[in-house]
Amino acid sequence: MRIACLQGPLLAGTPQANLALLDRMAGVARDKGAELLITPEMFLTGYALGASEVARLAEPLTGPSLTLVARMARDHGLAIVLGFPELSEGQVFNAAVVYDDRGQYVTCYRKTHLFGDVDRDQFARSDALPTIFKIGQVKVGLLICYDVEFPENVRHLALEGADLVVVPTALMQPFDVVANTVVPTRAYENQVYLAYVDRCGTEAQFDYCGISCVIGPDGAELARAGRGQELIIAELDLDVLRASRQINTHLNERRPSLYHRLTQGDQAP
Amino acid sequence: MRIACLQGPLLAGTPQANLALLDRMAGVARDKGAELLITPEMFLTGYALGASEVARLAEPLTGPSLTLVARMARDHGLAIVLGFPELSEGQVFNAAVVYDDRGQYVTCYRKTHLFGDVDRDQFARSDALPTIFKIGQVKVGLLICYDVEFPENVRHLALEGADLVVVPTALMQPFDVVANTVVPTRAYENQVYLAYVDRCGTEAQFDYCGISCVIGPDGAELARAGRGQELIIAELDLDVLRASRQINTHLNERRPSLYHRLTQGDQAP
Repeated sequence: MRIACLQGPLLAGTPQANLALLDRMAGVARDKGAELLITPEMFLTGYALGASEVARLAEPLTGPSLTLVARMARDHGLAIVLGFPELSEGQVFNAAVVYDDRGQYVTCYRKTHLFGDVDRDQFARSDALPTIFKIGQVKVGLLICYDVEFPENVRHLALEGADLVVVPTALMQPFDVVANTVVPTRAYENQVYLAYVDRCGTEAQFDYCGISCVIGPDGAELARAGRGQELIIAELDLDVLRASRQINTHLNERRPSLYHRLTQGDQAP
Repeated sequence: MRIACLQGPLLAGTPQANLALLDRMAGVARDKGAELLITPEMFLTGYALGASEVARLAEPLTGPSLTLVARMARDHGLAIVLGFPELSEGQVFNAAVVYDDRGQYVTCYRKTHLFGDVDRDQFARSDALPTIFKIGQVKVGLLICYDVEFPENVRHLALEGADLVVVPTALMQPFDVVANTVVPTRAYENQVYLAYVDRCGTEAQFDYCGISCVIGPDGAELARAGRGQELIIAELDLDVLRASRQINTHLNERRPSLYHRLTQGDQAP
C-alpha cells in the first residue's frame, strides 16, 4: 500500500485555506497512487491558537469542515487522516479523524498525552485508548504528537496488532531528536511501519521542525521530508513486514510478568 | 562523576588475558579520573563459546576470577562492572557483577531477555528484575544487551529512580541501529544517562559492532567509540540531569492506567 504524508501548511491559514490545500494535495496523492493521505496535528485550523480561538473553530464530527473532508476522501478515492479540534459535549479535544476511500467515517482518536501548556490550555485530555482499524489489508493505529514519545503507547498498538502507526504531529524546535531518533526506534522496537507527519513553518512562538518521515520495521527511513511544505510518499509491504518480524522477534520475546512496575502509580517517584 | 567504558577485547582471549587487559585498563581509567569502569557482556570469558565451554568457564560469585576483579577494583580504587558467566546451583547465567572502589560486592544482575540461539543454548533465563545501586551519588541500574531493546526494561529502572543505566553488550552486525538509534532513544525517553558498552572484533560467527556510547538525557552522544578496542570516557552531571528533567517531563506525564495491555499475556497475538 502506498501512503502520502502532507507536511504543512507552511503558513498557518484559515480552515478554508487549509481545506483548499488538502483538496489539492489529495488529488496529487491519488495521482501518485496513494491509498491513504495523512495530515499533521491540528491541520484544519492551526495548532497554537489559544483556548478561545480553538473553541470557536472546534467542530463536532458532524461539522461542516469534516463533512467536506469526508466528501474529498470519496471524490479523490483515498482515505484521509485529518488533525482537527473536536468539539464534544462542551469540551475541545486535540483529535484526528479517519475517512475511508468512500468517504465513510472510520474512527476518531483524541490525544491522551497532552504536551505542555499549549495543549493543556487548549484541550481536554482523553482517557480513551486508540483502536485498530484497517485501510485495505493494513491494520492501522493512530497516535498524536507527544503520545509517540511514550513507548507504552506504540507498544499498546503493536500488541493490538498494528502494522502501521500513524502520527499527526506538531513537533517544534529544538526537538529534532524525536523525529530523527525516537520515531525510528518506535518502528524498530515494535516491528511496525510508522508515519510521522509534522507541521512546518512558524506559528505563534513555534518554529516547527518539518522532517516528517515514514520508517520501516528495520528502523530505516523510507521517506524523509525537508523543512518546508512537502508531500512525501512511501510504499508499505506486508511481506516485508512479516519477513522483518521473523528476524526481529522482540514482540514474541517480551516478558509481561516482569513489567508490572509500568502500570503502577500515576507518576514517577 | 566520570565513567569509563572498555570496548573490547578486540581478540577474544582466555580469562587470564582478559583479566590482564582489565587490570591494565582499570589503571588507565583511574588515571583519567574515572570512578566507574564498565566492561562488555561476557568480557571475562568471551561470549560465543558454546554451552559446554561456557559451563566449564562459568564461576560462582566466590570464584577465583571474580575474587581477582574485586581486588582490582580495590587496588585501582574504582568501581568495576564485569560481564561474566555466573554458575549458580548447576545453572549458568549471562551475568554482570559490580564491585565498588573498595572491592566490595555491590550487586549481580542476570540477563532476563535472552537473545536468539546463542543465548538460549548457553544460558538459563533469569526472572529477577535488576535493582538500583549507588556509585557515589549516582543511582545506577544494570541491563545486559538485548534487555535494552525492550523499552519496558529501561522504563522499569527509570521508575525505580535510576540516573544512569549501564548496559554491557555484545551487539553484532547488522544491528548498528540499536547502538545508533535505540540506545539514544532510551536515554531521552527516560531522562537518564546511558552507557552501552560493546565487544569488538570477531568471535565465532559474529562480527561485533563496537560503536559503544555514553548518551545524555537529551539523547546526545557524550562519547562514541569506533570499531576497535578503545576506552571511552564521559562525565555525568546530576545537575544537568535535573535541568533536563525540568524540560523533558515525560516521567511525570506518563498515564499508567492506560498501559495495562503491556502486562497482559506472555506474547504478542
